[in-house]
Amino acid sequence: MIGIDWGTTRFRAFRLTAEGAIRDHKASGRGILAVPDGRFADSLREEIGPWLAAGERHVLMCGMVGSRQGWVEAPYLACPVGPDDLAAALVEVPFDWAEVKLVPGVSGADADGVAEVMRGEETQLAGALAAFDRLGAGRIAAACLPGTHCKWARIAGGRITGFATHMTGEVFAALRGHTILGRTMQDGTATDHAAFDRGVARAAQAGGLLHHLFGVRAEALAGRLAPEAGASYLSGLLIGHEVRAALAGLPAGAIVPVIGAPDLTALYARAIEAGGAMAERINGEAAARGLSLIGGRIGWR
Amino acid sequence: MIGIDWGTTRFRAFRLTAEGAIRDHKASGRGILAVPDGRFADSLREEIGPWLAAGERHVLMCGMVGSRQGWVEAPYLACPVGPDDLAAALVEVPFDWAEVKLVPGVSGADADGVAEVMRGEETQLAGALAAFDRLGAGRIAAACLPGTHCKWARIAGGRITGFATHMTGEVFAALRGHTILGRTMQDGTATDHAAFDRGVARAAQAGGLLHHLFGVRAEALAGRLAPEAGASYLSGLLIGHEVRAALAGLPAGAIVPVIGAPDLTALYARAIEAGGAMAERINGEAAARGLSLIGGRIGWR
Repeated sequence: MIGIDWGTTRFRAFRLTAEGAIRDHKASGRGILAVPDGRFADSLREEIGPWLAAGERHVLMCGMVGSRQGWVEAPYLACPVGPDDLAAALVEVPFDWAEVKLVPGVSGADADGVAEVMRGEETQLAGALAAFDRLGAGRIAAACLPGTHCKWARIAGGRITGFATHMTGEVFAALRGHTILGRTMQDGTATDHAAFDRGVARAAQAGGLLHHLFGVRAEALAGRLAPEAGASYLSGLLIGHEVRAALAGLPAGAIVPVIGAPDLTALYARAIEAGGAMAERINGEAAARGLSLIGGRIGWR
Repeated sequence: MIGIDWGTTRFRAFRLTAEGAIRDHKASGRGILAVPDGRFADSLREEIGPWLAAGERHVLMCGMVGSRQGWVEAPYLACPVGPDDLAAALVEVPFDWAEVKLVPGVSGADADGVAEVMRGEETQLAGALAAFDRLGAGRIAAACLPGTHCKWARIAGGRITGFATHMTGEVFAALRGHTILGRTMQDGTATDHAAFDRGVARAAQAGGLLHHLFGVRAEALAGRLAPEAGASYLSGLLIGHEVRAALAGLPAGAIVPVIGAPDLTALYARAIEAGGAMAERINGEAAARGLSLIGGRIGWR
């Protein structure tokens, strides 16, 4: 089968073996925003035509491709949701010569009743369930999926029971690009871990995030924060505030799996450990594993 | 005498009587960023030439005009600082036919030793001291000066003893203009007070600011936040978080004077009252009063 994680700005496809291993993969910038005039079928042919020509007949997709702005809208499933629920609610997509289905997104509410939605992360979480079992599923209070909009999902009995989104990545970009804070920052090629840790530590102090942000500038003007360290400090400040708020609702010493790309999960793991919980990084292709798992539920491998 | 509050984006001048009343005033968009090639003297002649021609010989300025990017740099005075300290540290500015002096800015550190600076607010605070006395100076734990960078100043014995800056106004503009949150908002002519209060109440709930921000979008998508109310809700969320963090260090039932323009002080007063303190709005020309007070200390009126 072919598994596809089709997001807002990225297209990632995996050709999977019957055992769920990745036989081949490809990635491009053809996210749903880059598909003109609803030509999703044409885009799919262009992206994975060779694999279809080689005999693949089953395509399972997740992510924003199932949103109102995507190919076909797949209604949200309400929490609690596990792999069986997702497999039972796949949405068929008309396509010329292969069977194409969409994994639905998941809806929920936070502790105060404010609405929450995810698309794509539910599939990554399904793909990480086996890793959760290895870590001791009973000790996992929440899993963290960093990104532009970071998700913290509560897991129980192999299902997502609720989740909360933090706008950390997007706020970082807006503050760096469109406030006075960016003026004292230089681009660095790599994260300055000491500056990141300083930002995380600052997040634990009094005064609140909106005050701490001004300190990025004040410390730079006072010569205590080098221009090439400024972005790392700001990143630590924001991730530190996010992690502290997210851990506040969890038992002490909880295990928090962090699912995503190695560089970002490494930063979140530092902040989570600083906050007193235990971070376990899951850096493999969780989306591919989740698509394979759900495909297995409907006999596609 | 003539008092001038010359900031980054605004120029405001007051012709003051010997009793400190405002005889005439003018305002323009000629902030220091709009002065080309350091031509501050020319700009001043153009702005207040008629008053000088009418016989005024003393000009006292405060604000960013005394910064490194301004006309002449006036070194910061370290806290504690009161009107006598400011008057003793005025910086002379060469000018052809009038005596021109600058009020220095003030530096400090927050409770955790992070650097803080202000320029202009020290003069507004000096101008509000008489109002503080009327309110009962002993019951005033801190004064709030809303703006792009909002200042919360601790006052004791008629002097500024420390202060903290919150980047609330600038963060609001960056989030509204440069994140996904702006997409579900329409311009409104006035603040929607019910939506503002909802944002303030949300700030008191669990989850942290970075999570609450995503809720602006989620609530809009769920049809529970109208496009024309979105900006007011976001404003309440940010001001609510700022006020909660700032009040956390103050005694319960404290009086908080709020100094500034009527619309903004009204919003801050709502959030401060919601946070359990007592807000007292001071909407007059605090900068003009402060310039007059300091001018009086050196015999200019």
